[in-house]
Amino acid sequence: MKRLEIFGVDGFGEVGPGDSVGHMIADACSRNGIVLNADDVVVVAQKIVSKAEGMLHRLDRITPSAYARQLGRELDKDPALVELILSESKRIVRKGGRAMIVETHHGFVCANAGVDSSNVGLGQAALLPKDPDASARKIRADIQERRSQAPAVIISDSFGRAWRVGTVDVAVGVAGLKPIKDERGTKDRYGYELKAAVAAIADEIASAAELVMGKKDGVPVVIVRGCEIEKEEGSAKELLRPEAEDLFR
Amino acid sequence: MKRLEIFGVDGFGEVGPGDSVGHMIADACSRNGIVLNADDVVVVAQKIVSKAEGMLHRLDRITPSAYARQLGRELDKDPALVELILSESKRIVRKGGRAMIVETHHGFVCANAGVDSSNVGLGQAALLPKDPDASARKIRADIQERRSQAPAVIISDSFGRAWRVGTVDVAVGVAGLKPIKDERGTKDRYGYELKAAVAAIADEIASAAELVMGKKDGVPVVIVRGCEIEKEEGSAKELLRPEAEDLFR
Repeated sequence: MKRLEIFGVDGFGEVGPGDSVGHMIADACSRNGIVLNADDVVVVAQKIVSKAEGMLHRLDRITPSAYARQLGRELDKDPALVELILSESKRIVRKGGRAMIVETHHGFVCANAGVDSSNVGLGQAALLPKDPDASARKIRADIQERRSQAPAVIISDSFGRAWRVGTVDVAVGVAGLKPIKDERGTKDRYGYELKAAVAAIADEIASAAELVMGKKDGVPVVIVRGCEIEKEEGSAKELLRPEAEDLFR
Repeated sequence: MKRLEIFGVDGFGEVGPGDSVGHMIADACSRNGIVLNADDVVVVAQKIVSKAEGMLHRLDRITPSAYARQLGRELDKDPALVELILSESKRIVRKGGRAMIVETHHGFVCANAGVDSSNVGLGQAALLPKDPDASARKIRADIQERRSQAPAVIISDSFGRAWRVGTVDVAVGVAGLKPIKDERGTKDRYGYELKAAVAAIADEIASAAELVMGKKDGVPVVIVRGCEIEKEEGSAKELLRPEAEDLFR
């Protein structure tokens, strides 16, 4: 019977600038009696990666531009937050209500460029890591340094979506697994050739992990065990749909 | 330690028109020594629900309209398939390449109105259930009839998305759980009031189950155990974002 286990790493502790998230994961697993193996996927909340990489900003130290102040008034948002969002954005996709949907410099389309004031301390906001794939590779290497095993790593964040209510967690950085499972051209058990069978498994793994992580439970690291993954370096960029091919937006 | 287990129900067997998917689930669980409990979520692939409800159509028995023939030529698609897609659609959202993105009568925005020729037998296509919430409720009641326990039920399908490559499984029907987890207004551990914390947990559970289900492994029923859910009747319609509030499309 195919079986997946998904469990949180308890007692992770606070992460600060310069910390090695990978070493912290290895050590927390030891404390919890978790023996990581090379087939595991370690899902790490973006927030702690951003903290380790010094991507937190105090809002009272930001000087908003005239445009940020104008947008802040229009959207009833803190102009300092708007300034941070703009600094992270390639373009604004849509704005309205109190929301800004942008394309980030990484190519992610999400609310507020992923800039987020939750779980970071009052008066602060965290930006996404500059290069989340590189962050994932670093975490993976640091786990391996301590544990000699290199599980795959996914850095996750909660993204809103077109057409549907609510966020689901997706992979913003990956290391050690192919983020999509492409079965196009293979046949189902009736002999029908599959045409649309490309599953975004890194996103599905991130979503599965979110069910354990939660939004405020302080479980920023979750192990997904038993998942069939294709091992390769991988990149979350494989999950970005080129605009010309996107009929869903 | 918070822990989720996700496992498939092996040896499910073929589903035909008139079959009770709920009874089949109860019986297959018995054969596999799986004791369902009221806190489990049973995720059921839409395809077997459609089969049980007689939603399969032989393409050679469909008479395509002139418009379906024209679209078929334009998109290099079987006009009979296009006819079925149109019959399931409220409106065409986009078309191009070989794809049609539509809004179904249920309100789902997805490729081909969910009409799909995989895993149903050659020359056939399955439509989505007419009322997937009602289908989920029926499955739940039929499981309870056999097992005296009523786990929550999610009917899942693989949907493409705006902005991102690949499909993820989402909930098209639910029974026995609140499909979203709304934590807006609660505070994180720093005292910050969460503003955007609405998680589409039914979609995340469906995505998690897909990791076990796969596209062609013949594992159409997956149990998700250990998930914190809010028990109520629920409806997948809660996951449909009203157009006026949708900045992501």
